[in-house]
Formats: sequence, structure tokens, C-alpha cells
Amino acid sequence: MSSFTPHPADATAIATIRTLAVDTVGKANSGHPGAPMGMAPVSHVLFSRFLNANPKNSKWFNRDRFVLSNGHACALQYVLLHLLGYKLSLDDLKQFRQLDSKTPGHPEANHTDGIEVTTGPLGQGFANGVGLAIAQAHLGAVYNKDGFDLINNFTYVFTGDGCLMEGVASEAASLGGHLQLGNLIVIYDDNHISIDGDTAVAFTENVEQRFLAYGWQVLHVDDGDSDLEGIANAITEAKKETKKPTIIRLRTTIGYGSKQQGTHGVHGAPLKADDIVNLKNKFGFNPDQTFQVPQETYDLYSEFGKRGAALEAQWNALLAEYGKKYPTEHAELTRRIAGKLTEGWEKALPVYKPADPAVASRKLSEIVLSKIVPELPELVGGSADLTGSNLTKVKGNALDFQPPSTGLGTYAGTYIRYGVREHGMGAIANGLHAYGGIIPFVATFLNFISYASGAVRLSALSGHQVIWVATHDSIGLGEDGPTHQPVETAIALRATPNVAFWRPADGNETSAAYYVALQSKSTPSVLSLSRQNLPNLEGSTIEKAARGGYVLHDETDEDLTIVSTGSEVAIAVEAASKLKAEGIKTRIVSLPCWLTFDQQPEDYKLSVLRSGAPILSLEALSTAGWQKYSHEQFGLASWGASGPYLKVYEKFGITGSNIAAVGKKVADFYKGQKVVSPLVKAFHL
Amino acid sequence: MSSFTPHPADATAIATIRTLAVDTVGKANSGHPGAPMGMAPVSHVLFSRFLNANPKNSKWFNRDRFVLSNGHACALQYVLLHLLGYKLSLDDLKQFRQLDSKTPGHPEANHTDGIEVTTGPLGQGFANGVGLAIAQAHLGAVYNKDGFDLINNFTYVFTGDGCLMEGVASEAASLGGHLQLGNLIVIYDDNHISIDGDTAVAFTENVEQRFLAYGWQVLHVDDGDSDLEGIANAITEAKKETKKPTIIRLRTTIGYGSKQQGTHGVHGAPLKADDIVNLKNKFGFNPDQTFQVPQETYDLYSEFGKRGAALEAQWNALLAEYGKKYPTEHAELTRRIAGKLTEGWEKALPVYKPADPAVASRKLSEIVLSKIVPELPELVGGSADLTGSNLTKVKGNALDFQPPSTGLGTYAGTYIRYGVREHGMGAIANGLHAYGGIIPFVATFLNFISYASGAVRLSALSGHQVIWVATHDSIGLGEDGPTHQPVETAIALRATPNVAFWRPADGNETSAAYYVALQSKSTPSVLSLSRQNLPNLEGSTIEKAARGGYVLHDETDEDLTIVSTGSEVAIAVEAASKLKAEGIKTRIVSLPCWLTFDQQPEDYKLSVLRSGAPILSLEALSTAGWQKYSHEQFGLASWGASGPYLKVYEKFGITGSNIAAVGKKVADFYKGQKVVSPLVKAFHL
Repeated sequence: MSSFTPHPADATAIATIRTLAVDTVGKANSGHPGAPMGMAPVSHVLFSRFLNANPKNSKWFNRDRFVLSNGHACALQYVLLHLLGYKLSLDDLKQFRQLDSKTPGHPEANHTDGIEVTTGPLGQGFANGVGLAIAQAHLGAVYNKDGFDLINNFTYVFTGDGCLMEGVASEAASLGGHLQLGNLIVIYDDNHISIDGDTAVAFTENVEQRFLAYGWQVLHVDDGDSDLEGIANAITEAKKETKKPTIIRLRTTIGYGSKQQGTHGVHGAPLKADDIVNLKNKFGFNPDQTFQVPQETYDLYSEFGKRGAALEAQWNALLAEYGKKYPTEHAELTRRIAGKLTEGWEKALPVYKPADPAVASRKLSEIVLSKIVPELPELVGGSADLTGSNLTKVKGNALDFQPPSTGLGTYAGTYIRYGVREHGMGAIANGLHAYGGIIPFVATFLNFISYASGAVRLSALSGHQVIWVATHDSIGLGEDGPTHQPVETAIALRATPNVAFWRPADGNETSAAYYVALQSKSTPSVLSLSRQNLPNLEGSTIEKAARGGYVLHDETDEDLTIVSTGSEVAIAVEAASKLKAEGIKTRIVSLPCWLTFDQQPEDYKLSVLRSGAPILSLEALSTAGWQKYSHEQFGLASWGASGPYLKVYEKFGITGSNIAAVGKKVADFYKGQKVVSPLVKAFHL
Repeated sequence: MSSFTPHPADATAIATIRTLAVDTVGKANSGHPGAPMGMAPVSHVLFSRFLNANPKNSKWFNRDRFVLSNGHACALQYVLLHLLGYKLSLDDLKQFRQLDSKTPGHPEANHTDGIEVTTGPLGQGFANGVGLAIAQAHLGAVYNKDGFDLINNFTYVFTGDGCLMEGVASEAASLGGHLQLGNLIVIYDDNHISIDGDTAVAFTENVEQRFLAYGWQVLHVDDGDSDLEGIANAITEAKKETKKPTIIRLRTTIGYGSKQQGTHGVHGAPLKADDIVNLKNKFGFNPDQTFQVPQETYDLYSEFGKRGAALEAQWNALLAEYGKKYPTEHAELTRRIAGKLTEGWEKALPVYKPADPAVASRKLSEIVLSKIVPELPELVGGSADLTGSNLTKVKGNALDFQPPSTGLGTYAGTYIRYGVREHGMGAIANGLHAYGGIIPFVATFLNFISYASGAVRLSALSGHQVIWVATHDSIGLGEDGPTHQPVETAIALRATPNVAFWRPADGNETSAAYYVALQSKSTPSVLSLSRQNLPNLEGSTIEKAARGGYVLHDETDEDLTIVSTGSEVAIAVEAASKLKAEGIKTRIVSLPCWLTFDQQPEDYKLSVLRSGAPILSLEALSTAGWQKYSHEQFGLASWGASGPYLKVYEKFGITGSNIAAVGKKVADFYKGQKVVSPLVKAFHL
């Protein structure tokens, strides 16, 4: 039985999408018209008949999520947002790809009304979609009750060939199949064209068979250019399958309607003027006009807004009813939706004294998690198959997030087994956060965050509060050797705008890192943690460390300041004590988070890294970047080495006695000179 | 018919591998015993019956390549190398995971005799294997002649569940299937265990079906613990299939023989003492002795060495005969095997004068390639589906590397269509270089190298000469916006040891970048290239730029030096001219490659970035790291923006007039002060 009732304005609406997208790209003289033209029919069917959302409140919590994973096709998304009644005018379309417009070259979350996640870098949106679907399944399992199907939205993802070639999407697809995410519907624009031409040159795998192997439902529509009923039937079938995600392979013609349709000539460049005339004639539009929207198209799409507004109103009523019957759950859910932490959660953070035993900071992280996970149910954790090394599973998240049929957990579980899929994990976590009500933490070795750089970058650009528990953070991991010992990773993350890279030195600093990370609603944090034990330091407190940098050990009229982080701070302290014996007064500054320190008032920063004596940085990593905070830098000149960690530290001279010798050299070198803080600058960016 | 003839010493040999691996891990008290114990039978069958290599000359060109993609199982590989007669003694096994030993925690190429590629970071070895197989197919197609099957080796890859979960392996597997690499045989250790426990928690896809979807031949052996004949039959069948790569799913028991066999307890920690006693008793070994090798085991494996030596002798004779019949091809092939460039190739590099028109450096790169590709047939290029944007396909590599049956090219083609698979491309390129005789260049946007960081890191650690053509290298790409505009990428690469990151400013500098990159046999290079046009600069030459940094424009008694790279050097020149008009004498230093500059003599470096006046750095990227070379830094404080590129530059103040204003501020700030070069240091690492 057909699930599609034709509407007299369907054809005009589709033609409107196509011509508007062409005009949008044409006016900008930049962008990708081909995919929008090819995907106009499926977009029309999905948004006019299926997608539940309210354009007047794009943040309604139970809306269906829509992700354009092939983000270069965003002219399509902007056109739809306009037609559907989101805060995007025809004038905004005319500003496509112009400076400071609402319509940038690729869709940016938290920038344009109605955009759920930032896409463009291929494969990310697909994996974000898996995260959005996990979030729905989880929150539904936790909060839905008999008669209160509060959280039951679908996630729809458009994807092209490019996304499906990317490993990040493969990782997410495999996990999505394992997790039996019946609420996830991916529509694959199988147009046979990528930038290099026909996909026959590089992409000849059997995509349907691959997704069957992942455990997905696989459907296809042979004529995506005009078979609206077939499209509607496929989406309906996808919605019915509750135990598997669905991918619908939709055979389309890229640039449908253009003289160049079906070729890569129409992929990434505006249509020529005569082709636009041809296209508009073909679709019955005035070839002399641009940005035409027939009233019947607006009228048709106004139904979308009405449906969404009505659904939201019903939902709000249901939520109010729920509040009466389940006041505790209601309070918790609404708190989570509002992005507020529980009152006083931070009191659970452990505090340490110097007499407390030395503990690895990965273990200190585990202790923090064991205290705060029970306080904050929004913390949904997981690891890329390194749980026992990352120490991310604690009593409060003992239950795995798993399909009930596996017998290994339930969807109410708060611990995700990501498998060895770092990039997929990072992108899924972005989706979890984008959904709302969840603060994801994910884990791997610090070195393997580099596998996920593409996702971390988009976390930072989009403002996703994702916490990375990144253990084994230096040569201190010892025997695993240079393949696993990060050298360049810290500066790569520190140089990424809006990434808070924390390298805590002891228990109080680890608590501080979590304290700031949890308060930072739109900043991803990477917690760089040691495998080896670290002593608790005299002079550290949560409050001081929460400023990102502070004076751990002070001296008046010092001869030297050593600035350090993480596992090397205790070595700096040891060096300072040796230097003192030689009459060289040495201050110690701990600088666990550059981003947070940089945000402090100028006078505070200048009091920490003050003028008067040379500053030496110490870190068992590349010295790159430390010149910003120090006059001299000690670290690794190249790769680490495999061996027991104390021997490795000795090989590279990172011991109390060698750092004391280096410190003396530095103090002597600058003796008698006027030494100005490296923070004193002619200008600030 | 069986392809396996049993040998009386088979069982003892397998037991020797297992007990040696256990002792190796046990003595180190660190490492992974489980996979070596489970994979001992297949290792024995492969190396004793199939693999062609000469332990006395591990570099024999036509050897079969063996890759342990699950590199954490390296105790297995070290044990095999020892038993087979490579330069690895029992004492080396006893030094497993100790400082400066030949047996580090994960296998490192160019460190241990017989190790082809560095593995450990999961998925890399699998993709390297695809690269090794491509290299064989290509060189065979180019140089083999009737009666001279000179290059016909197989590539064998061991992989575990972890590698198969990684996206980089998925990308490479899909491409490997498309390319019909019949010479590639992957053996999948299907032991159902990963660090988080049973693979049922995260990895339940149908691996066989997935590889069928990729176009692979899929075989399986149900009893990998003891069915030696079944293993041999599968490998034989794999070798027979010439149009598809083969994956053999081998069901094994991790830690076979241990009391904990089949559990993750045996994955990553040494066996307990009583378990070792149990194991040795079970296998008929003396439980009181360690590192026992029965003579019959050595004897059996000595056959491997004899077979390999004989094969190499035959091959050398064949090569000599080939030299008589095909002297030109012989000369070229042996030159390529020796890693020598053609005499005078560098004369093909284009040279520019300031009057030459402004050209984008991606286009300048294309011009270089069009000149040198015909000179250097070892250049095998490709792009991750951005050929028309990266401009990497030139007349000399017009023929695609493709299976002949596609009608799109042949295996003799030198241009690889990688698809949208950046990480796979990087790891495949490492395999291409590891094979020998090939210098791969690969291409994407600079921003998307971050997808491939895991592979770039291993290029650098292993010394693979891979050239990345990384176009669209800043906000200068304009409309695509911040999702595509790198900010942090340059410093991430500059901070990676042994990566030569080049950001040429004009034609001569682009030629210099290629000149140095091609001479650097064991260094990967990233060429960061503009989308927008750049003028040819007064003062640039190939020779000067090849030093990594030089004075482009000099002044005596300067008030300011501006140090810059790439597309911003011309803006610095414009600023200097404006400053001159205001009486501020400004030198310009171009610093296209930090790594190369750092390798210059101290006095040269101090003459370029000299004391006496402040140095201001300028780059349309993060300023992180520039403090090493400058007193003040101008760049991007955060993300870029979508818009026409000149407007984007203006928004961020990177224009001649604004930089002149900033330069004046800097000159004024330091006026009258003693200014010391940032290169003057108390010590050097």
C-alpha cells in the first residue's frame, strides 16, 4: 500500500528547490549545484511528508534531526530552511558564501537556525547521525514511560559517495549496526559522480552488501529523480524497522535538469548562464528572474510548520503531564535539556594533600569519574577498546549501552563500547552532544586522538562539550615505544582554537580539569593523563589550577622560573630543590591548560610568568609552542623510545638532576641581564 | 588435493614459537602474549611453506613482504625473525621492550632487520599492505617481460579484530578490492577477543560479507589452532586468485595453551609463572628453562633460509639476463631499486623572474610536476578525489593505475585514484615507499591531512619519502569557509619530528620545495600550497629557498624584520614598502621550511634572524610555534570565515596596510631596547 498521497504542488516545489539552489550558487559564483538538484525530490518528500520539526522553535527537543553529511550540498539545506520557515530569508540565500552571512560555504551548527551539526569534512555528518540516534535511544530508554513516549524522534542523514568512502563513516556504520539503531535513516545519494569523475575510478564496492554486513536494513529506489512514491515507501519502510538502522540507496542524476546533468561538470561549479535559462524554461520558471518562489510552494511548505507547531504543542502538554506523574524524572530531564549541571555537583570532586600517595593521573581521573558519574547522569562515557587502560568505567556507569537483545546491557546504559574506532567515536560524541541532554566523555591513548583529529576539530568549531580522557600521554608509557608515545599531539591540540588541553600534574589539578571541563558548555576538553604514578604536590589546589596556570612554588628575587605541566611538574620541583642547594632560587609554575590561562586577566598572567628572571619550560613532549610562555625550552627533540619508563626519562634527560643542571645553565646565561616576561608584547591579536 | 606435506618437526616448531613468545613477554614483564600464541600455527605454515625471502639479505627486492598489522603481537614476529635466521639473536629476544634494543614494544621499520613497515597503531599495517601490493603490481607491469617475471612477490598481512575496526583499514580494503590486487593475502586472526573483552561488545558485523562487498576473495579456516593443512590449502587458494585480494578468516584461540586461553586476560599482560609451567609441560618443554629452541626447530627453519637464498640467486641471474636483453629497463629498474634519482633531473625545475605573472602555488606545483614526472618514473601520484583542485595529474602521469579490466587504465599507470580516503591514502603511500623503487606523492586539501595524521606520523617515524601536495592551505581558499580552512595544521606538522612542512611563497620556492623533498630519501614532505595567485618575488631563488629560510629583502640597520611564509610573504613585502615610506626600514625573511632551516649552520641561521631589531612573524594561520623565530606574532586568533578570499584576508587584518600598522607598533615598542635574536639560547636540545 502506498504511503504517499500526491499533492498538486509537488512538482513545482521540487522545481523551486532546484532553481533556488542554482540561483543561490550562481549569485555567489561559488558552490555545488549538482547534489542539491539531484536531491531535490527526496528532500521534498522527506520534509513535506515525514520530518517532524518546528521551524519557529528549531530547538524543540523531540524534533526529528536532519543531517546533511554531504555538506558541500548546503545550498539545498539553506533553500529548504528558507522554504520551511526557519530564520533564513531570501536575502540570506543571496548572501550565500559571503562574509559574515548566515549561509557560509558549509553548514555550521550554532551559526544558522536549523542546522544541527557542522558538515562538509566528509564522513563526519554520517557519524554525527549515529551519535544523534544513540542519544535518542538512550534518553528514550531512560525517561520514556508507559503512555509517555516523550523522546522518540528519528534521525535522517543525507550522504553522498564521498562520505561513504571515508573511514570515519565506516567505523560509525559498523557500530550503528551493532547497536541496532532503528531510529536512524540514511539516504544515500547514489549519483555515480565524485570530483574525480565517475565513481567507477575508485569506488566500485557493493555498498548495499557492505551495509548488510554491518547489520543494517538496506533499501533502494531506482529512480530518485522522479519516483516520489517509491521514495515515500522506502522512508515508511525504514521507519517501521525498529531493530536496525536503514540505508536507502537512491539512484539520482546529479545536476538533474542541467545540460551537464550526470557529469562531474555540474558537481562543484555554478551552472553557466545559458544552462540556467535552459533549466528554468524546462521547469516552467521565468528565465529572466532569479530567486523565484511560487506562492503554491510556500503554501505547501507552510503545512510543515503547522504540523511541527502542533506536534510541539502536543509534546509540551505530554511533558507537563509527565511532570505531574514523574516529578523526579521530569526535573532531571528538563535540567538536562537546559544544559544545567546538578546543584553542588562539584562538591563531589576529590581534594588531595601532599601526604596522599602518588597515583597515576589516569587513576586520578577514574577517581573523579567514580565520584561525579553518580551525580551527573548526563555523563555518557566510553572508550575505543581501552577501557582497562583508560580507566573510564566506574560503578556509576557499570551498565553498558547495548541493544537489550545482546544480553550485554540496555539502551539505558551509560557506557558505550566504541570498539577500536577513534575517529568514529569522536564524531559520534559530537552527535551525542548536539542532541542535547548529554555530556559525552570518550577515551583512548593521547597518541591516538590524532586518528580522530577531523572530529576534534569540528567539536571545537561547533562548540561541542566533549571530554576526551587521553591516557598514556608521554614517553612515560614506557615499553609500548615511540609508535604510541605522543610528541606532537599536545601542541596540535593547543593550537586548535577552542580546545581546552589539560595536562594535570596531580590529584587537585585532575579535579580542576574536570571542574572546568564540565563548566565549559561549548568547549571540548582533552585531559592528558599519565600512565605512571605522580606525587601530590605541595601548593596545588583545585581553585588555583582552575585558572589554567599558577605559581606552585614561589620565591622572592628568583634566579629562575620553571614552567611545566603534568608528570614533569614533580621533576621540576625536584630540580628546584637541587638548585636551591646550589643557591639558585627557582620558582615553579604549573600550567595545566593554556587556553584557560590565556583567558585570565593580563595582570594575573604577568604575575605568574613574571619578568625579572628567565623562564624555562619543561615537558616530555615537543617543545613547539612553549616559546610563548618561556625563554628557554626543554623537552623531546625527536621521538621517544621503548623501555621501562624511568630509563626512557633518563635517556632524554628528564630527571631532577639533569633539569637542575639545565636550570643552572639558564640562570647563568641570563645573569645580569634585564629579563622581560615573554608575555609582554607590542600588541595582542 | 592437499597442498601441505607434514613434517615431523611441525608440532615442535609451533610449540617453540609459543613458548619463546611467552618467555619473551615474560622476561620483559610487558607485552602481548595472546596473539602470538594463537597465531603460531599460521605463522609456522606461512613461513615454513610459503613465504619467499632471504634472511641473509632482508632487502632482496623480489621477496614476499610480510606485515604484522596487529603490531602489538610483535613478540611473534621477533621470535620468527630469530628462528628464520635474520639478524636477531636470542639475546635480542631477552632484551624485548628494553631501552635501545632491536626488539622495541612495537615493530619499527629501519630499526630491526626484516621488519618491512612500522606497526602498532591499528589499521596502518593493513593499509601499508595494500600499498606494498600496489607497488608490486605496478613495477611488475612496468618491468616484467616475456620470460622475465622479475617482480612477482606476494604481500602477506596478519591482522586482528582491532585493525579491521579501524577506518583506515576499511578505506584501504575498499580500494584494494577495486584495484583487484591478486597479490595481496590477508590473514585475519578471528579470536573474538579485544581489550574490552569479547568482540561481541562492539564488533558484530559480518566481516566475510563486508570483504565480499569490497570485491575480495574470502576464505576461512575454522580451526586455526591445529588445522595446518586447512591453513596451507587456504593460502594456496589465495595465491591462485589473481584478480582479487584474499582475506582468510582464521578462527583461533587467543593465548592457546594458557590456562586463560580464549579470554582477554591473556591479551596484553604476561602469563603468570604457574601458567608458564603449565604451558611448557603441555608442550613437552622443560618448565624450568626459558628461551628453549630445540635443534629440530632450528633445522626445520634453516630450510626457509636455503629456499630464500636459492630464490635470490636465481633472481639475480634472471636480472642479469634481463640486463642483456633490456639494458634500458634494467638500468632504470636498478637505479630505482638503489633509490637514486636520474642524473640532472633537477635541471627540469622551473625558474622564475619577478616579472613572471602571478600564479597560485598549487598551479606552480602542477608546473613542477609536469616537468619532473617525465624525468622520474618512480613518481607515482594520486589524489583523494581532488585531482582537479590539487592539480596533480599532468601529461607524464596521464595513465591511471587501474586494473586493465576496468578499461580506465593499466597497472603500468602512475596515477592512483584514491577516492575520498585520506587516511588510507597516507598509509598506502607508506607501503608504496616501503616497497622500494617508488616515490609516492599524494594530494588533498591541507586541512584534510588531519584525517591522515596517523599515517603521516608513521611516515615520519619510519622515514618514508612521501610527498603530500596539500593545496587550499589557508583562509585564502575563501568561500569554502572555516570547515575547510586550516589553522592548526601547519604547527601540528611542524611539531612532528622529521616532517618537512614547506609553505612556498612563489615559483622559485615551489621548485625549491620539490628539490629538497626529492633529495630527502627518508623524510616525508608536506607542500602547503595556495588556491589564490601569488606574485613572483624579487629576491627569491631556488638555491636560497632550499636552505629553508633566507633573507628575501635586506636592509642595513633595520628597524624591523618580518618573517613570513607562503601567500603572506608578498603581503609582508607590501607592508615593508609602506613602512619604508614612513622611514621604518624593514627586512623580509622568507621561512618556507622550519625543518630545513633548523638544519642549517648556526651562524647562517643567526644571520637570517639576526639580533638588533624586533622580528614579527606573519602567517594566515595560528601563531602557535612562531615564538621560536620571532618576538611578535601576527596571524589568526581563531577560525577563519567563509567569503571571497580578499574579504576574508581583510577581515583578519592580513593586508599590506594593516601589517604596516602592526609593524610600526612593533618597531616603536622595541625602539631603544637591546633586541636579541630569538635563536640565541642558553642551550640547544
